[in-house]
Amino acid sequence: MSRQLHLNAFLMSVGHHEAAWRLPETDPYADLDVEHFKNLARIAERGKLDSVFLADGPALWDQIGRRPSAALEPTVLLTALAGATSRIGLIATASTTYNEPYNLARRFASLDIVSGGRAGWNIVTTANLEAARNFNLDHLPAHKERYERAAEFVDVSLKLWDSWDDDAVLADKENGVWGDDAKIYPPGHEGQFYRVAGALNVPRSAQGHPVLVQAGSSESGRNFAAKYAEAVFTAHQTLSDAQEFYDDLKRRAAEHGRDPDHVKILPGIVPVIASSPSAAREKEEQLNGLIKPEYALPQLAALLGVPVSSLRLDAQLPDDLPEEEAIEGAKSRRTLVVNLGRRENLTVRQIIARLGGGRGHLTFAGTPVQVADQIQNWFDNGAADGFNIMPPVLPSSLTDFVDQVVPILQERGLFRTEYTGRTLREHYGLPRPANRNAGTPVHI
Amino acid sequence: MSRQLHLNAFLMSVGHHEAAWRLPETDPYADLDVEHFKNLARIAERGKLDSVFLADGPALWDQIGRRPSAALEPTVLLTALAGATSRIGLIATASTTYNEPYNLARRFASLDIVSGGRAGWNIVTTANLEAARNFNLDHLPAHKERYERAAEFVDVSLKLWDSWDDDAVLADKENGVWGDDAKIYPPGHEGQFYRVAGALNVPRSAQGHPVLVQAGSSESGRNFAAKYAEAVFTAHQTLSDAQEFYDDLKRRAAEHGRDPDHVKILPGIVPVIASSPSAAREKEEQLNGLIKPEYALPQLAALLGVPVSSLRLDAQLPDDLPEEEAIEGAKSRRTLVVNLGRRENLTVRQIIARLGGGRGHLTFAGTPVQVADQIQNWFDNGAADGFNIMPPVLPSSLTDFVDQVVPILQERGLFRTEYTGRTLREHYGLPRPANRNAGTPVHI
Repeated sequence: MSRQLHLNAFLMSVGHHEAAWRLPETDPYADLDVEHFKNLARIAERGKLDSVFLADGPALWDQIGRRPSAALEPTVLLTALAGATSRIGLIATASTTYNEPYNLARRFASLDIVSGGRAGWNIVTTANLEAARNFNLDHLPAHKERYERAAEFVDVSLKLWDSWDDDAVLADKENGVWGDDAKIYPPGHEGQFYRVAGALNVPRSAQGHPVLVQAGSSESGRNFAAKYAEAVFTAHQTLSDAQEFYDDLKRRAAEHGRDPDHVKILPGIVPVIASSPSAAREKEEQLNGLIKPEYALPQLAALLGVPVSSLRLDAQLPDDLPEEEAIEGAKSRRTLVVNLGRRENLTVRQIIARLGGGRGHLTFAGTPVQVADQIQNWFDNGAADGFNIMPPVLPSSLTDFVDQVVPILQERGLFRTEYTGRTLREHYGLPRPANRNAGTPVHI
Repeated sequence: MSRQLHLNAFLMSVGHHEAAWRLPETDPYADLDVEHFKNLARIAERGKLDSVFLADGPALWDQIGRRPSAALEPTVLLTALAGATSRIGLIATASTTYNEPYNLARRFASLDIVSGGRAGWNIVTTANLEAARNFNLDHLPAHKERYERAAEFVDVSLKLWDSWDDDAVLADKENGVWGDDAKIYPPGHEGQFYRVAGALNVPRSAQGHPVLVQAGSSESGRNFAAKYAEAVFTAHQTLSDAQEFYDDLKRRAAEHGRDPDHVKILPGIVPVIASSPSAAREKEEQLNGLIKPEYALPQLAALLGVPVSSLRLDAQLPDDLPEEEAIEGAKSRRTLVVNLGRRENLTVRQIIARLGGGRGHLTFAGTPVQVADQIQNWFDNGAADGFNIMPPVLPSSLTDFVDQVVPILQERGLFRTEYTGRTLREHYGLPRPANRNAGTPVHI
C-alpha cells in the first residue's frame, strides 16, 4: 500500500471561524451540548479519520460577547465521546504548567483505558497571563521555564505510565495473589520541578500509553517536539514554509535518535467547501463579513506584544513591532501573522478576517477536488504526513469534508476506506512502546 | 408523602469486601473494565437509587498482591457512566490537598453539564503519606492545615461555579453578541492558599453546581460538613453512635444558619443478603475466610499509629494505643476501630475480618426483610436520612439489594418507585442554589 495520509478533525465549539455561531444554521448553545460533540465524533468516525482533537486552556479567554466561550474540560468531554464511538482516536490538550503530573498522567491513562487505547495528549505550556492568574501567579512564567517544566512533566508522565508491567496482574484466586508486586515500578522521581515517589494506580493501556502530540513551533517547541512528539499540529500559510518546518522537524527527530517516520506532521487547514470556486469564496466572505473586528483587535495586539492603540483597522501593521525573541507567549504564531500581513500587504482588518477563520492556519476555499488537490500537493511534496482538519462551521463543514473530500482521497489510494487498527497508535502507524521501566529494581 | 429514604450505591472495584475478587463468580479484571461500572450504574438506576459514588485517592494504596488495585480516575469514569444512564446521580471523591481549584471546579462543572445536572463532589483532604509523596512532599500535611485549605478550596470553587449568571448567554446572532459580559463574575479571589482571578470557562449547570458531599467525622470534619456538606457519608457500628452523630451534625448545621434538612446523613452499610439468616452468615464467613491477614496488618497498624510489630494476629489490641488527637490521618476511623475491638473483645485477626468487609462501616448479614428492617430502624430513630449502600461483592450484592431489598422499602412507602426529578439535587430534595455572585460588580 502506498504511503497513507493521516487526518485529524480539530473540533472547536460550533466551528473554527469565529463568526460561525452567527450563521442561521448554527445552534449557538452547542458548545455546551455533549450531543453536539458526539455527533461530530460520529461524523469523523464515519469518515475513518484517525482522530478528533479538542484544544484547551484553563481560563475564560475572551469577552463572551464575541462568540461561544464555554469549554467543557476536554478529558471529560472525550470520555463522553469514547462512549459514542468505537474506533476514532481522542486527543485533548492539557497544560504542563497548570497541572500535577500524577493527576494528569492518571486522567489520560484512564481515558486511554476507557476508550480501549484511543487517547492522545496534546502537550502545551499555556502561554497566557489569564491562565497564570487562575493559578496563584501574577505573571506568565517565562517561555524557557515553561518548556523546562514541560520536559520534566513528560518524563515523569512516561515513568508513571510504565508503573505497571504489562503482565503485572496475575488474578490468582487460588493463592489469593491478585498482582505481582515485583512488577510495579514506582517512579521515585526527584527532579527540578517535581518529586513523584509512587506508582500510578492505573496500569498500561492497550496502546501502552497515550500518543504524545505537540503544537509549538518556536525553537523550544521544535526541540521539544523532536524529542517527545509522535504527532505534531502546525500552522503554515505556504508550501515552502511547511516544507521547511517538515524537513527541520524530521531532521531534529533523527538527531534525537528517533525514527522520523514516528513523528507525524499535520499542518492545519480550514476547508471552506462548495460546489464551485466562486461559491466557496462567497461562503468565506459571508463568514468574514460577520466578524466584529472590535473583539479581535485586543487579541491581535496581545499576540504582537503592542498596545491596542498602536493598531488601526484600515492601516497595515506598524513597522516597529517587537521581535519574536521579545515575546513570551506564542512565538511562532506571532511571526506567522507578521509575515502574512507583510507578504500580502494586508490591513489590520484584513488580517483579523484571515485570523478569524483559522487563527493563523491556512484557510482554503474551493471545491472538494481542489481541497483534495491541496492536501495531496502538500502530502506529496514533503510538507505533511497528513492534515489537521479545522472545519470553519460545525457540524456542516465537517460533514462536507467527510462526505465530499474523503471519498476523493480514498479513490486516489491516499486514505483508508476502513479502520485496520483499534488504537490511536495503530491509526497513526506508531509502534506500541515497550515498558521503559520493565526489569528495573523497585526503588521506592 | 411520608419522609423518604435516600440511597447511594458506593461502587468499589469488584466489591467492598477485600476478598470479593477471589470468589468464583467474580471477574478479577473488572476494576479496569468500564462496562463493569456501566452495568453497576444501570443496576442502581433500575433500583431508582439517588446516586452512585466512587471513592478515590491519588496513589497506589496497597500491595497489588492483596486485591484489585487499579482505580480509573473517577471524573473520567463517572462521565462514562453518565452516558450509560439518564437519571441517577454521579458522585466522585476528589482531594482538596492535591488539586488546583480552577481545574477541579471546572472538571466537576463539566461532568455536571455532560450529565444534565447529576454531579456530586465528595470533598476529601486525603490523609495518606503515599499521596503526599506523589505531589512533591515528604510528609503528610497536618490535619488542621488540610482542613483550612479545604475550606478555602471550596469557597473558591463556589465562586467559580457562580462565574456566569444563569442568563449570561444571549445568543444574539443579529447583533453579534453571544453573551453579556456584565453577567460574568470573575472570583478575584486572594486568600491564604489560593489566588484565582478569572471566571470559570464553564457556565452553571441544570442544578446550579455539583452537590457537595463530605465524609470526615473528626471534629474538623464535622464542622466542615456542617458548613458546606449537602450529603454526608459516615461510618457507625451502633444505633446510638449513629444517633449521636446525626443529632450533632444537624445541630452544627443549624448553628451555621443552614436548614438541617439540607444536610442528608447517610451511614454506610455492607449488606450481605441471603434467603435465611444462616445462609447470610455463611456467605459472610466464606468471604472472611478468603482474607489474607498479612496484607491487612500494615494498614491497620498505620491507621492506629503503631508499628506493625506491636500487633499480634491472635491477641487483642495493645492497651497503650496513641490517642485520636495524636493521629494526623483518618482520626474518627481510628477511634471507631479501637472502640469496636474493645467493645467486642476482638482479636486483631477478627478486627481485620470485620474491616475487610467494610473498613469500619457496619456489615449486616441477613434476609432482605432483615436488611430493610435495619435500614428502617435507623431511619425512623433519628440516626439516618438514608444509607450509603456498600455491596460486598459486585455486581451480585448490588443486584440482591436492588431486586430484593428496594421493593420492600418501596412497599413500606419509604422509597421512591420512580424518579420524580432529573438532577442529583432533586433526588436528594435539595434546592437549586441561587448564584452567590449575581449582581456583584465585576472586579477583575
